[in-house]
Amino acid sequence: MNFHNLSERASKAARLFRSSSIGPTTTAERVDQLNALDVPDAVDALLKMTQARAVAVLDRPELHRAAEIIAHIPLEQAARFVNLMSDDRVADVMAEMDDEPRAKLFSRLDRATATAIRHLMTYPPRTAGSMMTTEFVSVPDRWTVEQTLAHIRIVERSRETVYAIYVLAEDGTLAKVVTLRRLVTGEPSASILTVASKEGITYADPLMSQEDVARLIRKHDLLAMPVVDEHAHILGIVTVDDVIDTMIADTTEDAHKFGGMEALGKPYMAMGFLDMIRKRGGWLAALFLGEMLTASAMQHFEGELEKAVVLTLFIPLIMSSGGNSGSQATSLIIRALALGELKLSDWWRVLLRELPTGLTLGTILGAIGFLRLTIWQQAGFYDYGEHWLLVGFTVFCALIGIVTFGSLTGSMLPFLLQRMRLDPASASAPFVATLVDVTGLVIYFSVALLILSGTLL
Amino acid sequence: MNFHNLSERASKAARLFRSSSIGPTTTAERVDQLNALDVPDAVDALLKMTQARAVAVLDRPELHRAAEIIAHIPLEQAARFVNLMSDDRVADVMAEMDDEPRAKLFSRLDRATATAIRHLMTYPPRTAGSMMTTEFVSVPDRWTVEQTLAHIRIVERSRETVYAIYVLAEDGTLAKVVTLRRLVTGEPSASILTVASKEGITYADPLMSQEDVARLIRKHDLLAMPVVDEHAHILGIVTVDDVIDTMIADTTEDAHKFGGMEALGKPYMAMGFLDMIRKRGGWLAALFLGEMLTASAMQHFEGELEKAVVLTLFIPLIMSSGGNSGSQATSLIIRALALGELKLSDWWRVLLRELPTGLTLGTILGAIGFLRLTIWQQAGFYDYGEHWLLVGFTVFCALIGIVTFGSLTGSMLPFLLQRMRLDPASASAPFVATLVDVTGLVIYFSVALLILSGTLL
Repeated sequence: MNFHNLSERASKAARLFRSSSIGPTTTAERVDQLNALDVPDAVDALLKMTQARAVAVLDRPELHRAAEIIAHIPLEQAARFVNLMSDDRVADVMAEMDDEPRAKLFSRLDRATATAIRHLMTYPPRTAGSMMTTEFVSVPDRWTVEQTLAHIRIVERSRETVYAIYVLAEDGTLAKVVTLRRLVTGEPSASILTVASKEGITYADPLMSQEDVARLIRKHDLLAMPVVDEHAHILGIVTVDDVIDTMIADTTEDAHKFGGMEALGKPYMAMGFLDMIRKRGGWLAALFLGEMLTASAMQHFEGELEKAVVLTLFIPLIMSSGGNSGSQATSLIIRALALGELKLSDWWRVLLRELPTGLTLGTILGAIGFLRLTIWQQAGFYDYGEHWLLVGFTVFCALIGIVTFGSLTGSMLPFLLQRMRLDPASASAPFVATLVDVTGLVIYFSVALLILSGTLL
Repeated sequence: MNFHNLSERASKAARLFRSSSIGPTTTAERVDQLNALDVPDAVDALLKMTQARAVAVLDRPELHRAAEIIAHIPLEQAARFVNLMSDDRVADVMAEMDDEPRAKLFSRLDRATATAIRHLMTYPPRTAGSMMTTEFVSVPDRWTVEQTLAHIRIVERSRETVYAIYVLAEDGTLAKVVTLRRLVTGEPSASILTVASKEGITYADPLMSQEDVARLIRKHDLLAMPVVDEHAHILGIVTVDDVIDTMIADTTEDAHKFGGMEALGKPYMAMGFLDMIRKRGGWLAALFLGEMLTASAMQHFEGELEKAVVLTLFIPLIMSSGGNSGSQATSLIIRALALGELKLSDWWRVLLRELPTGLTLGTILGAIGFLRLTIWQQAGFYDYGEHWLLVGFTVFCALIGIVTFGSLTGSMLPFLLQRMRLDPASASAPFVATLVDVTGLVIYFSVALLILSGTLL
């Protein structure tokens, strides 16, 4: 999400419509209210609601500490709630509960819910199987439009969605999908197959990663997607709202990683102090240890440093340019990989683009740097010594070298990480900058030795 | 989206199901095919499709160069396509066309489409009004369930969605919302109001920003949200797929900005060379000019530099720690602001958290740095001079100072930008690092002067 200059009227409107709803409290508003309370108070508030409202609130992923809250509700009442909640939500919540309350609760679930939960919880996290719900509508292919509508009227309350109806062949395999909007336009006595979608069915394997599931749902503009086993039997469905929740969590995780730290996994203000230190300190210390190589590099060139202190003036400038160009390149490639615009095999094409790009950008910065040095020297702001022109030329060449190197490193690193089956998003701006800093120093001093030996060095 | 270590089976499954559909080509696959062709070939391929398929393809936001393609279709056929496309999509595509083809096409549109488009195009970009479609279902509140269903059967083909039905009072104002799933369970002869949602209606003002629209739709798990004027008349609706498209575009833009450059606005491989240089070079040069202040700062401290060359060894290390901690802090705050976890007024609470966090992280890094220096000295890897302990202490204190300052700067910058009505996401990692570099040097040398005057300085 980003923010823009709203016109005066728009920002007034946004403030007016902050709650943006008219009429009785919405479920989302109740969720917000509960989130602001302590667990005991939240439990009280929940028990005061009607059963339907309480279940609706518990069903929302935005409700924090749902596992804790349910564990504090009297067991019989908790079981009644859980039996009515969506299976996929129950699976998620129970996964977070401690073993004892979970076991007690599980023994009180009705058979259908218990079977569904047990099944859902066998799938690894962040896969289609772990996201799906078993509460979908499926009908035999020999049914008519009217029979299907009658069925929907009966089961509607207990299904995650009735907007996608799955038509099964006689052997139980998934044959067709029917959307409710097409169904209501069908001839009542006609076969269900007459209103089925003509396009191929898009589906997911239960072990498909949640990112791929989200991508497919987006790509085909679906409201729901079936999860199908190798025998073409439908195991469950993933709905579009799950996709949105996934996308938001993924984006947050990526943003934190790109900033150079472990993903928080919680809202910023909800992080405990020690947790925060641990998540940020880990990467910070690792990068620090890596950056210590710059001290080693500088120690290696200490002779040159003593002879030409003027060179130290530009160290921060040159290093930061490498880090900045690397940060740009890596953010572009991470995003392009995530969106599927680039594949692993595209690394070569990217290299061929980044090389001239880096050289051009480096030349631009080098020219600015050279100009600045020249202006300062000629205007008398500073005296860089009698060999100032050579120093300027050193800065110019070093900048070209390091910006090019930064762009190449920044663009290649996400590919390398993905090749190593790591998350390309870990190619954070600080990580790239650290890599480039060390080599950048070596480049800088090597160029200096080349240009300035015999004079300054 | 991010990538994870898939289990062997899962990655096999992912490869098997790469196309993940069974049966005839889907619209999304046709869109991919057209995207891979030149415009003339894409036009040919489009004209070979049935009208329904061609319209479905043109309706997809994932189709690149739609404006160009339509401009190259013979005018009468193009008008036929456009009259059948979704209004909101037509508004977007026509906005991208050059004036002459657009005017010609506009004159050929049927009246309903032309009126809707003209209306949609009056709204500023990135607002609810510019996202919405006028093709929704609305019925009077005196209708029955049966009448509503009959109406839906007639208009279904031409509506963006029929899953949300808007019930209007006699004066034309929006009174209730009915979901199709509830509608099909209603008694045919009962009033439409019996199946209306009991919760308050969530709606958007036409000038509401697209991020706020997306946030509301997410929050209330809606498939569609009405856009309502100040007289409670419904102007159009925004659907959940628009939200997903918005979220993806926003995330890409934010990722690019955080990497320290202007948003590309196009896929990476689709960027022309000069465009790429312009978008990256701009920020890179601006940051370079800002970073030149470090050279000025170092020039200011040149006396100290010459006396204590040993201090230069740690310049990259200390500066990068400031930049890294700043990058972490800023990525956390940008994301929290974007998700609505933090408001502008929370800056004070954030400051109070970042202060102890920065001090603690700085102490950790300072200890590591001091340790490293001590080990190197004692093990004989390097000789930092007779005052090595004081130098170590200088590094220790400077790191505490600069990491704290980095965390504070990184966390406050997004708030400041938002206060100035700029995009907080512009608080990129390189931007924060540049700010912190300059002050960091001043901190470092000031601390050095404090601790080392009389000895090294």
